[in-house]
Amino acid sequence: MLTSQVFMSSLEEIRHSLAHLLAAAVLKKYPKTKLGIGPVIENGFYYDFQFPKPIAEADLERLENEMRSLIKAGLDFKGEKLTPLKAKKMFKGQPFKLDLIKEFSKDKKPLTIYHTGDIFTDLCRGGHVKNTKEINPESFKLTHLAGAYWRGSEKNPMLTRIYGLAFNTKQELEEHLKMVEEAKKRDHRKLGKELGLFTIIDEIGPGLPLFYPKGAILRRLVENYIIELQEKNGYVPIWIPHITKGELYKISGHLDKYDAMYPPMKLKDEADYYLKPMNCPHFMMLYKTEPHSYRDLPLRYTATTTNYRYEKSGELSGLTRVRALTQDDCHVFCAPEQIESEINLMLDMIGQAYQDFGFKDFWIRISVSDPKNKEKYIGNPKVWQESEAALKTLIAKRGWRSEIGVGEAAFYGPKLDFILKDVLGREWQLSTIQLDMNLPKRFELEYTDAAGKKQQPVVIHRAILGSTERFLGILIEHFGGAFPLWLAPVQIAIVPISEKHLDYAKKLKSELSEFRAEISEENETLGKKIRNAQLQKIPYILVAGDKEIEQNSANVRHYKTGVLGNMKLESLKEKLREEIKNRTNSS
Amino acid sequence: MLTSQVFMSSLEEIRHSLAHLLAAAVLKKYPKTKLGIGPVIENGFYYDFQFPKPIAEADLERLENEMRSLIKAGLDFKGEKLTPLKAKKMFKGQPFKLDLIKEFSKDKKPLTIYHTGDIFTDLCRGGHVKNTKEINPESFKLTHLAGAYWRGSEKNPMLTRIYGLAFNTKQELEEHLKMVEEAKKRDHRKLGKELGLFTIIDEIGPGLPLFYPKGAILRRLVENYIIELQEKNGYVPIWIPHITKGELYKISGHLDKYDAMYPPMKLKDEADYYLKPMNCPHFMMLYKTEPHSYRDLPLRYTATTTNYRYEKSGELSGLTRVRALTQDDCHVFCAPEQIESEINLMLDMIGQAYQDFGFKDFWIRISVSDPKNKEKYIGNPKVWQESEAALKTLIAKRGWRSEIGVGEAAFYGPKLDFILKDVLGREWQLSTIQLDMNLPKRFELEYTDAAGKKQQPVVIHRAILGSTERFLGILIEHFGGAFPLWLAPVQIAIVPISEKHLDYAKKLKSELSEFRAEISEENETLGKKIRNAQLQKIPYILVAGDKEIEQNSANVRHYKTGVLGNMKLESLKEKLREEIKNRTNSS
Repeated sequence: MLTSQVFMSSLEEIRHSLAHLLAAAVLKKYPKTKLGIGPVIENGFYYDFQFPKPIAEADLERLENEMRSLIKAGLDFKGEKLTPLKAKKMFKGQPFKLDLIKEFSKDKKPLTIYHTGDIFTDLCRGGHVKNTKEINPESFKLTHLAGAYWRGSEKNPMLTRIYGLAFNTKQELEEHLKMVEEAKKRDHRKLGKELGLFTIIDEIGPGLPLFYPKGAILRRLVENYIIELQEKNGYVPIWIPHITKGELYKISGHLDKYDAMYPPMKLKDEADYYLKPMNCPHFMMLYKTEPHSYRDLPLRYTATTTNYRYEKSGELSGLTRVRALTQDDCHVFCAPEQIESEINLMLDMIGQAYQDFGFKDFWIRISVSDPKNKEKYIGNPKVWQESEAALKTLIAKRGWRSEIGVGEAAFYGPKLDFILKDVLGREWQLSTIQLDMNLPKRFELEYTDAAGKKQQPVVIHRAILGSTERFLGILIEHFGGAFPLWLAPVQIAIVPISEKHLDYAKKLKSELSEFRAEISEENETLGKKIRNAQLQKIPYILVAGDKEIEQNSANVRHYKTGVLGNMKLESLKEKLREEIKNRTNSS
Repeated sequence: MLTSQVFMSSLEEIRHSLAHLLAAAVLKKYPKTKLGIGPVIENGFYYDFQFPKPIAEADLERLENEMRSLIKAGLDFKGEKLTPLKAKKMFKGQPFKLDLIKEFSKDKKPLTIYHTGDIFTDLCRGGHVKNTKEINPESFKLTHLAGAYWRGSEKNPMLTRIYGLAFNTKQELEEHLKMVEEAKKRDHRKLGKELGLFTIIDEIGPGLPLFYPKGAILRRLVENYIIELQEKNGYVPIWIPHITKGELYKISGHLDKYDAMYPPMKLKDEADYYLKPMNCPHFMMLYKTEPHSYRDLPLRYTATTTNYRYEKSGELSGLTRVRALTQDDCHVFCAPEQIESEINLMLDMIGQAYQDFGFKDFWIRISVSDPKNKEKYIGNPKVWQESEAALKTLIAKRGWRSEIGVGEAAFYGPKLDFILKDVLGREWQLSTIQLDMNLPKRFELEYTDAAGKKQQPVVIHRAILGSTERFLGILIEHFGGAFPLWLAPVQIAIVPISEKHLDYAKKLKSELSEFRAEISEENETLGKKIRNAQLQKIPYILVAGDKEIEQNSANVRHYKTGVLGNMKLESLKEKLREEIKNRTNSS
C-alpha cells in the first residue's frame, strides 16, 4: 500500500512536502522565526526565513535530522479552506504570511492552509504527499544558505533562504550530488583559468572574454574544423564587416523588434551605425548585389563572424553566455525543390561534427506549423507542407530521436533544434536549421528560373556549433579540460630530466614540429615537472634523459593511461598521427 | 646654351609656364573667357576658366597646338611690380583676377604680374622659365576637363578646369601616360568587381567592404600566410573582442587623444562601450592578467583582428582606405636586452613575406630621436641609444635601402616604416616596427628578472601587411588581378567541350581536389568558355573532350603562357604543387 502511494506521489509533491517539513523543523529549533515562502525548484525546494539570529550552514544537518524525525512520525498532510479573517488570526505572529494573505484576499482568491499532522500549518495551495511516510528520509539533503529579499525587492527585508535537494531514492540523490561535484570540477570558468584558456577583464567588460594563446588555438581548431567540413561539402566563405548603417535593419525589420542590440553610434554628419547582432541581413544584401540564375543555386554562403548582443550583466556566465558571440553561420539560398537535399546535407554535416567532437547523445526538436492556424504563416503553403514532411522523414530515416512541436514554427518557416547531452547528462541546445520565407521577401531576393522567369529563393539559416564561445564552454566541461589529442592546445610536454638534457629536448621538439609540443623548462624536480604537465592535462609527456639520448627515443607516458615506455620517434609519430586522424580520445 | 637652360629650369617652372601658355592659348581661341587661377600640381598643372560657352575635351588638342606655337615663338617671361590701382585697371575685364587683387592688396602684399612675350599677362608671383624655348613642345599634354567652384566654394560660380601633364622629355610623358593607362586597368575597385572579389553596399556603409567567396578566399590565403609565418617563428595567437568599456582607453590615453574613434554606445545602466580603433590596450591588459618571469620572455602575442576608424567618407577608397581594417597585429613583450634579436627576427619575417608575395623593391624609413632634444623622450636613454644603433646596423647588414629621420621618432620609441614599390613604381607604406616604452608604463606591466626584481618590459609593435584590406588592394593592382597560383582564388578552370564531357570534367575536379578548381558549366561555345576563364584570370584552363577522356588526361593552357598541351594528371599535379610551393608567378 505504501509502496504504491510512493509511486502515486509525484516528485513535485515530495519536494513541496519537504519544504513544509523544513519550515516545521525550523520553527521547532528556532521558535521565533518568521516564515517567508517555500516553493519547489529544479531538483528540490527552498524556504525563506527571518531568523531571530543568523544560522550557519553547519546548522543544516540538525535541521535535516529533525526533518527525518518528522518523516518517520508518519504525519498526514491535510488541506482546509478558510476566510481571510480567520487566516489573519491564525498567522498573526507571521508578518510575511500576513502580507500574502492581504494580497490573496485582495484578489478574492479562496485561501487554503495545509496542516502537517498537528505540528505545523502553512498558507498553501496544496500539492503534497498524503503522509510523510511516502518520503524516503535518505533521498533529500539541505545543501546551502543564501540571502534573498522578501518578494525579490531590495526595499524589503533580507531573508535567509535554505536550499534542499530531493529525489525519489537515495541513489538518485547520490548520483545528483556526484554530478554536481563533477560539474564543479569541470566548470569551464575554473578550468579556463587553470589551463590558461581565457579570461574576463573588468576594464574591458563582462561577457567579453579574451583568449590566451592556448584558448586561441583551441578556438581556431574548432572553427577550422567547421570551415573545412563546410568547404568539403560545397559551402563557400564570405566576409562581412561587424558594423552597418541602421538602414539595413530597417529593411530586415530588426531595428524595431530586436531588443538585444547595442545602442547606436551617433555621428554628426552620417546616419547612425550599429554593431551587428546577427548576420542574416548582411548575407541577404550580398546575395542581392548580383543577378542569379537557377544554375548558380544552391548558393551556400558561410562566415565565422562575431555578433554582439547586449545581454544583462547578471545573466552572463563565462563562455556559455557572452556578449560577443562568434557564429559558424551559414545561409543557403536555394530553389524550393532543393530544400530537402540541402537539409539532408546539413544533417550529414551535423551528425559528422557531433561524432568527431565526441558527442553521442542528442535529440531534435522539430518545430512545425499549426494546421488550425494557417493564416499565421507567410510563404507558399505547398513549400511549408513539403518541407515539414521532409524534415520529419529525414530525421526518422537516420533513427535520430525527435519531438515534434506543433505550432512552434516561426511565422516564416519550420525549424530544427538539436539538443545535445554532455557527459554529465546535462542538455545544451546547439545546432539549428531554420527555413526562412520572410527575409527573401523583405529584401526582394530573386533568381531566374529555367524558363527565364524571376523567382524568390528560399533561405535556410544554419549553425552547427551555434557560437564558438558557448561551444568551447560545453567542450571544456564535457572533456573536463582533458581534450582529445586533435583538440589539445598543447599535445606533447617534453620534460628533460636535468639541464644537460635540454638540448636533446629541443631536438625532440624540432623533430616533432608537426605536433604542438612544449618543453618544460621549469627549475623543478622531474616528478614536479611531470605532475605540472598532468595538471595542464597535456595528453603526452615525453621524458628525455641519458638513455633516451643514447637510443634516440623518448620515454612516453599518457596523461590518463600512464607510462607507455620507451618509444622510437617514428613509431610515436605514427601513433599520434593515427590518433589525430581518428579524432579519438585515448582516455 | 638652350640645353643647359633646360637643365637649369626646374620641372616646376616648366609646369607653371605651361599654365600661363594655356591661358594665353585659351584667350586667343576664346577671347571673352574669364580667367581663374593656374597652379602647378603633381605631374603637371591646371588652369580654371569661365568660358563664354562650354568647351569639350575634343577642343583640347587645338589648345595644345596653339600652346606649341607659342613655345616655338620663343617668348620671354618677365616679371613686373605694380600698385593695386594699376593692377585693377589692367585686369578690369577679369572679375576673378579683380577678386584676387582685392584680397592681395588687403594683405598689403606687393603685387606682381608676369608677361609672356607681349601676348599675355597674368597676375602671378613668378617661378617661370626665362623663355618658352626651354620647354619641350612634345613633353606636355592637356588631359581632361573638370568642374571647379571659384575658390572651392559652392557659393561661387562653377568654372571649367583644364588639366595638363608636363615632364622634361617626351619619353617621360609617354611613360607616365602608359603608367596611368595601366593603373586604370589595374584599379582594384574595377578588378574587384570584374573578378567578383568584393563590393561596397550603400545600406551598410562606405568604407565597409563585403567580400564575395573569391575575395574571402584571397583574404584567408593572405592572412593565413602571415599566421603560419608567425607561428613558425615562435609567435602565438591570442583572441580579443572588438569592443571595450571606455575605461581601457582612459588608461591607455587614447580616449582624449585619438580622434578617429567611433562615438560611444551609450547604455543606461553601464559605462559607455567603444569599438576598438587599435589593439594595443587589449594586448597590454591580457599580459597584465598573469605574472611573468624573465624565463617567459619574449612573449610574442599576435592577433588578426579588425579595427574600426571613422575616416571621413570623402577620403575612403575601395580597399585601400576603409573604416574596418583588419590588422596582422603583433606585440612582443621583451626585456631590453632582447630588443635587437627580436627586431632581427621581425626583419627576417618581413623580408620573407615581401619575397613570397613578389615585391622586390622597398626601402625603410628609420625614425630616431633628436639628440638635441633629449627631454622630449620617455624611457631609459641607454635603451634608446642601443636600440637606435641596432635598428641602423640590422638594416645596413641586410643591404636594404634606408633613410634616417632624425627627430622623427615618437616620444615613446624609435620606429621603422617599410615603403614598398609596386610593379607600376608607386610607393605604399606597409610594414611597421615600433618600440614602445610608454604603454608598458601606463599599464604598469612587469616581469620578474633573474635576480627576483620587478622590471618593466619593452613592447615592440609590429605589423607586416599593415591591414589585410589595404594589402589586398595593393596586391590586386600589383598583379593586375592575375594572381600567382598559390594566391589565385580559383586555380583551375575545367572546361568540358560539350555537355557529354561534363562527367569527365567532374571526375577531373574530384581528382584535383587539393586545388581550387571550378567547372565551367555555361551554355556557351568552347571558345567563349575559355575566354571567360581568361577574363577571370584563372591561371590554368583544362579543356576536356573525347581525346582527354580516352587518355585520362587534360588539355592544359595557361592564362598567360598559352597552350601547354595534353598532360597526364599526375604530371600536371606535380607541376602545380611545385609552382604553389615556390610561390612563383608563372607569367
